[in-house]
Amino acid sequence: MQQLARKDARGLDGADPNAPSVILVGPQLGENIGATARAMLNFGLTDLRIVSPRDGWPNDAAVAMASGATAILDTALVVDSFDQAIGDTSYVLATTARPREMRLPVYSPEEAAQEVHLQRQRDATCALVFGAERRGLENEDILKCDGIVVVPTNPSFPSINLAQSVLLLAYEWRKRSLLGEEAPASIEQRFQSAGRPTPAPKSDFENLMAHLFDELDERDYFFPSEKRHAKERNLRTALSRAGLSEGEVRMFRGAIKSLTRNKR
Amino acid sequence: MQQLARKDARGLDGADPNAPSVILVGPQLGENIGATARAMLNFGLTDLRIVSPRDGWPNDAAVAMASGATAILDTALVVDSFDQAIGDTSYVLATTARPREMRLPVYSPEEAAQEVHLQRQRDATCALVFGAERRGLENEDILKCDGIVVVPTNPSFPSINLAQSVLLLAYEWRKRSLLGEEAPASIEQRFQSAGRPTPAPKSDFENLMAHLFDELDERDYFFPSEKRHAKERNLRTALSRAGLSEGEVRMFRGAIKSLTRNKR
Repeated sequence: MQQLARKDARGLDGADPNAPSVILVGPQLGENIGATARAMLNFGLTDLRIVSPRDGWPNDAAVAMASGATAILDTALVVDSFDQAIGDTSYVLATTARPREMRLPVYSPEEAAQEVHLQRQRDATCALVFGAERRGLENEDILKCDGIVVVPTNPSFPSINLAQSVLLLAYEWRKRSLLGEEAPASIEQRFQSAGRPTPAPKSDFENLMAHLFDELDERDYFFPSEKRHAKERNLRTALSRAGLSEGEVRMFRGAIKSLTRNKR
Repeated sequence: MQQLARKDARGLDGADPNAPSVILVGPQLGENIGATARAMLNFGLTDLRIVSPRDGWPNDAAVAMASGATAILDTALVVDSFDQAIGDTSYVLATTARPREMRLPVYSPEEAAQEVHLQRQRDATCALVFGAERRGLENEDILKCDGIVVVPTNPSFPSINLAQSVLLLAYEWRKRSLLGEEAPASIEQRFQSAGRPTPAPKSDFENLMAHLFDELDERDYFFPSEKRHAKERNLRTALSRAGLSEGEVRMFRGAIKSLTRNKR
C-alpha cells in the first residue's frame, strides 16, 4: 500500500495524533487542495488523502495556496480509488451539501467531531470525506461511509467552498479535542459507545460486501438486474449501521462461506 | 452618512435580520473581500462594511470570488475610517490572531456568537471586526471594541486566512441563531444580561471620549506627553467595560460639562 512508503506528517509541530484523516475525492482545483492543507494544519490535522486529483500530482497551485502547510501536501497519500483511501480506516463520515435519500445518520459538524472523538476512544481510525467541487460525492462512495455531515448553511445560498467545508470540520474537531475527556457526551451517546465494538477496517468490510455480493450474484439474487443497485445498497446500509468489528466481519465471512458450501 | 444612501442587502433570501455586521478594516486582496461576502451569505449575514480597501472600490477580484453573493458587495458600506464604520453600532467584537495586552474580555467564536445574541435581545446593533491580511487590527481600533475574539488554532500554525476567520464567526453565529431563544445561557450570562443596559451607539461613546480627552488635555492631564497614550487607553478601557447606555453617555457628557465650568 502506498501509505506504508510515505513520510509521516503526524510529527509536525502541533499535530494532533488523534485527529481524523481528511479525504478529498476527485478535487479539481489545486488551490482548494492547498487551502485544505492549510486549514488542516491550522487545527492540528495532518493526514491528507487525495483520490484522483483532476490535475495530477504534485500540483504547483496547491503548494502556492498551502502557505507553509506544504508538509501536509508532501506527505499526502494520493490514490486512484476511494476504497484505497478508506482501506485502513474504520469510521468514516461524508460531508455533503444536502442530505441524500439514504438511511445513514446525519450529523452537524459539531456532532461529527463528537462522534469521531467517541470512536477514537475506542481506537477506531477515523476519516472525514469531501467530494469534488460542485459535483460532490457519488452515492456509491457515500454508502461506504458511516454517516453524513451537513453544514447548516443558509438554504437560499448553501454552497460553500471545498476548503471551507474542511475548515469548519477541522475547527469543530479541534474545539472538541481541546475539551478533552471531560466533555459532556449525552447519556444516549455514552450508552451507544459502551455497547458498540471498535469497527473493523473499511477494507475488511468491503471484502465482506464483495464476498456477499459475489455469492449472491452467482445465485441470481440480483435478477432482474434493474434491481441490483437498490438491493446492494440496502444490504450495505443495513450491515454498515451495525458497525461490525474485525472479529464480526471474520465471523460473517465464515458464515457466508458456510452458507455457500454444498449441503452435507 | 453613507449608509443611509446605500441599498439594503437585508432583504436577500435567507438574510438573518438579527445577524451582526461584518467590518473589514484595510483589506488588501479583493479575493478575500469576495470570499468574505460569500461566507457571510452562506450563513445569513448581509451587512458588510469596508474601511479603506487597499485596491479601491468597486473591485473586480472581489466580484469574481463572491460566487453569487455579489449583492453583499453591491450594498457594502465603504468608508475611510473605522469610526465611520462603527458609528451606528453599539456592540463590537474584534477578531485577532492572538490576545493583546488589553483589558478586554476574550471570547471564542462560539462565545462571541452567544454574546452577540444576548446583545441583540437588548436591541444592540452588533458588528464583528476583522483586520487586514497579516497586519491585523491596530491597537487603537481594538480599544474601541467591546471584546476580542480568538479562534483556537494550532499554536504552531495559527495564521488563518481573513475570509476563513469571517467564515468561522459567521458559522458560529448561524449555529447560535438556529438554537433560537431556548439556548442555554450560563447563569452568569443571564445575570449580566439582566443587569446591563442596551449600550449606546459607538459614535456617542466616541464623542464622550473625545469630549473627556479634550477637556483633560486642556488641563494638562496628559503631561508629560509620553504618558498620553497609556492614560487614554486606560480611561477608555475602563469606561468601555461599563457598557454605557445612550442615556448614561449623555449623563457623563453633562457631568464633564459641569466639571469643566467655572466654580460658582
